[in-house]
Amino acid sequence: MAQHYGPDRPDLTYVAHDFPERTVDLGEVVMNYAVTGADNAPALLLVPGQIESWWGYEAAMKLLEADFRVYAIDLRGQDRSSRTPGRYTLNNMGNDLVRFIQLVIGGPCIVAGLSSGGVLSCWLSAYAPPGLIRAAYFEDAPLFASEVAPACGFSIRQGYGDMFLLMSRFLGDHWSVGDWAGMVAGAPAALPAWMAPFFPCGDEPPQTLKKYDPEWARTFWSGTASINCSHRHMLERVRVPVLFTHHFRNVDETGVLQGAIADIQVAYARKLIEAAGQRFEYRSLPQMGHSLHGQDPALYADIVREWSRTLD
Amino acid sequence: MAQHYGPDRPDLTYVAHDFPERTVDLGEVVMNYAVTGADNAPALLLVPGQIESWWGYEAAMKLLEADFRVYAIDLRGQDRSSRTPGRYTLNNMGNDLVRFIQLVIGGPCIVAGLSSGGVLSCWLSAYAPPGLIRAAYFEDAPLFASEVAPACGFSIRQGYGDMFLLMSRFLGDHWSVGDWAGMVAGAPAALPAWMAPFFPCGDEPPQTLKKYDPEWARTFWSGTASINCSHRHMLERVRVPVLFTHHFRNVDETGVLQGAIADIQVAYARKLIEAAGQRFEYRSLPQMGHSLHGQDPALYADIVREWSRTLD
Repeated sequence: MAQHYGPDRPDLTYVAHDFPERTVDLGEVVMNYAVTGADNAPALLLVPGQIESWWGYEAAMKLLEADFRVYAIDLRGQDRSSRTPGRYTLNNMGNDLVRFIQLVIGGPCIVAGLSSGGVLSCWLSAYAPPGLIRAAYFEDAPLFASEVAPACGFSIRQGYGDMFLLMSRFLGDHWSVGDWAGMVAGAPAALPAWMAPFFPCGDEPPQTLKKYDPEWARTFWSGTASINCSHRHMLERVRVPVLFTHHFRNVDETGVLQGAIADIQVAYARKLIEAAGQRFEYRSLPQMGHSLHGQDPALYADIVREWSRTLD
Repeated sequence: MAQHYGPDRPDLTYVAHDFPERTVDLGEVVMNYAVTGADNAPALLLVPGQIESWWGYEAAMKLLEADFRVYAIDLRGQDRSSRTPGRYTLNNMGNDLVRFIQLVIGGPCIVAGLSSGGVLSCWLSAYAPPGLIRAAYFEDAPLFASEVAPACGFSIRQGYGDMFLLMSRFLGDHWSVGDWAGMVAGAPAALPAWMAPFFPCGDEPPQTLKKYDPEWARTFWSGTASINCSHRHMLERVRVPVLFTHHFRNVDETGVLQGAIADIQVAYARKLIEAAGQRFEYRSLPQMGHSLHGQDPALYADIVREWSRTLD
């Protein structure tokens, strides 16, 4: 039986969390977020990865709230933020974050994002209006590796992309298909063996997927999310200091990237950022899964706190 | 001999105009603009069409400055505003205008745009942050008709698109080809006969083209300018009163649209805007060329002034 989730079925789709949720009208989207920490502490904006919500940062927020005014948001198409059919792009999401910083934070911030959120952290470091971004943390961000035709290294179709294609097919834009059982049954044939730990399973989808608009998956697979936003051009424009933590990665004998981003891709990102005159801090954590802040919030908080002390 | 124009050849590319030019750093782009009228008069933002610059409004500005604080801008890739290779899209340009309104105008405005600028006027009426746009004037705007796969009526390839393809081929992104003589020679074979009055001619390009990045033409022909920005979805979201002036149009026996937008397309736009709860004022001016403000500035100023008096 098809399962459908979304803003028209809030009781099925959303659950309560430890911090109260707030919303702000940014024009095109109403953005859901949580905030904690002292009003006058340095502002830290946390941007979840694809399929993640603001509450993926809950444990980290509790460790960071003593030192920062911490804002954690839901991107368009995630959780209680608006869905925007046909309009899921890095450029649109980046501009959502610009508006959030202007309207809610009201001044310069450090931005830290995981995965697609890390790519958006990069976007802000390149394209935000002057004075909004102090520094940017790219947590295991798939620079180049989430593009269909990257300037360097592996494409999304040589990595995690099969999972997006699977979700897009069986769940459909805005959960229009909702064939979770089909997705579970189809995974072993559709996904490479190295993804086995991530194969979908069980009678119903995890909370992270229920509140996710699977149109995201289609747009990343097809490339429309990243079109008109070359990562190379973006990296050439970075205007603030950058921290990159690089987690598990491996290239198998079929030339497939296991993990978010390959060494050669981080190296090229670094080259471009340094050529743009910006400092690039790098931490290699090859034993770490994709989400450092989820897997080891204490280490995440330590790294962010320590790095922030090196900023002006 | 190839001719090249652009910011690296300012003496060849730009000329002086009647109002002083100013620039503002919006983050990704530095935007060129002119402003006139009293500080405390109602703000009016003028957005030129493709291939036009702010100074296409000079005559109109002189007629409107007594009643409005008039801002006329150059979009990215036009005149002295920044060129942004790979990033010419309606969504990016719309967000540039949001930043301009926030940083320069500093409060709500009426926005009036011609052609592609009229499409952006529509974009702002749908997607701007709350409180920035009072009302929007779409001057002969190619709603639907500048899309490759419109929801209604003629596509760009059933209309003016051949001209964009011609420019893209012979001039190249950022004037990288610059074969003006080839464009002049190639026009009769590449363009339909009805465009004869607009065929390129002479030894060098007009000023309007010299200061234009022909990548615009490629992106409109290919559809990457409009991707992720369905005009239908945009029109469904219009949040302010709209004025539309509709100029010359005709459909020939081959099913080609001569002019910017067909009657059926304006009618559908109106239906969507009214369904969104907004007032739609319509003036049919079938004897008028594409630019009312260029061809008859006095009539343009009268129409804008009169319509503005009906707004709250």
